[in-house]
Amino acid sequence: MASRELVIGFDADDTLWHNETIFENVHLRYRDMLARYHDAATVDRTLFATEMRNLEPYGYGVKGFMLSAIETAIELSDGKISADEIRRLLELGRAMLAHPVELLDGVAETVATLATTHRLLVITKGDLRDQERKLAKSGLADHFRHVEILSEKNESSYATILRRHAIAPEDFLMVGNSLKSDIAPVLALGGCAVHVPYPLTWAHEHVDTLPPADGRFFELASVREVPPLLSQLAR
Amino acid sequence: MASRELVIGFDADDTLWHNETIFENVHLRYRDMLARYHDAATVDRTLFATEMRNLEPYGYGVKGFMLSAIETAIELSDGKISADEIRRLLELGRAMLAHPVELLDGVAETVATLATTHRLLVITKGDLRDQERKLAKSGLADHFRHVEILSEKNESSYATILRRHAIAPEDFLMVGNSLKSDIAPVLALGGCAVHVPYPLTWAHEHVDTLPPADGRFFELASVREVPPLLSQLAR
Repeated sequence: MASRELVIGFDADDTLWHNETIFENVHLRYRDMLARYHDAATVDRTLFATEMRNLEPYGYGVKGFMLSAIETAIELSDGKISADEIRRLLELGRAMLAHPVELLDGVAETVATLATTHRLLVITKGDLRDQERKLAKSGLADHFRHVEILSEKNESSYATILRRHAIAPEDFLMVGNSLKSDIAPVLALGGCAVHVPYPLTWAHEHVDTLPPADGRFFELASVREVPPLLSQLAR
Repeated sequence: MASRELVIGFDADDTLWHNETIFENVHLRYRDMLARYHDAATVDRTLFATEMRNLEPYGYGVKGFMLSAIETAIELSDGKISADEIRRLLELGRAMLAHPVELLDGVAETVATLATTHRLLVITKGDLRDQERKLAKSGLADHFRHVEILSEKNESSYATILRRHAIAPEDFLMVGNSLKSDIAPVLALGGCAVHVPYPLTWAHEHVDTLPPADGRFFELASVREVPPLLSQLAR
């Protein structure tokens, strides 16, 4: 496997820039708002159940999250939540969308370096406009040959993208924080995958098992360790 | 211009299937809900203003519309709208997302016919998941070589797509109901454009002028008239 020929895909949220920390901060304020009706664990569990129920109609992203948060607030307060509190939830959502993009440590240098030797892709899921905006704000856009924003990251959607860009799975390496969305489907297709865990993981992104990897799966503490790994693979 | 070599792009909402009628029906119910606070014209005008203000953060699609509708209902009722009414708004939104896809007259046959002689693309804007779901439900997906869902349809985004698929603008013909999103940017790039008006047009899609077209702009009453037009162009 010649490292120089690998095409490298990067997940975006919690791989290139912080995202789950923004959601976590909103969760804290959401629990406070509903604290007079229910304890934090009930609030979290009910909101997550609403999000999962609404994943099919809404898909991923901030707008669906806000709609689910409003629905859950009405449910948990038995309709007693005030219009003013719902207005504050809407403001929280817009603040999430307007939040500055904060790159993870090492990302700016590593992506810039890798772009000089490899074809780089962004492969992410979520709201179309929100992800495009974050990429534009990130200052990284010029380093990526293509940006693919998907409604779901699974074997079938990765296969479509690899076909579209004429990339053989064995020439593809995906870097991401989600075992479910970034690692498992790519390993299943025969590609390489680098897991860089993020301190927080949304419950929906947990997996129990990974497909057989035969030396194609790597776990690194930081995206900074990707270039040394590529050199090692090229030997 | 050899007609057989033209690549044909189709807009989706209100070109392939009915969409604005679904929004119009929701608008009727929304006006009813707010009738005890304001007259219909004020409700419409305020909702549209909220949607325009939120276009940058939310983008197009049902989820952003619902968030704007909730915000406007709180504003117009001076916070007196009930949680139960907001819950009904959320239900209306999910009903929109679950609405059956109803093809416009002539679309099924025309698209199937054109697919045997031309490369067909769908080029649409809106929520990623919602548009993918509608295309899947439409029964038309197999006729299209590529599906492009954009956060905005303008010269720059059309240019990106034509480049991605190696289509020269003069070999491209776009069919759509919106002068602003489907016709003007394509004419500006040097492509051909076929306007098939829909009985209802969202105020945001109005334009005052079109770029010079030099015989590259056509207005047809139905998508059924596209194949005869192509034959004529090929002569």
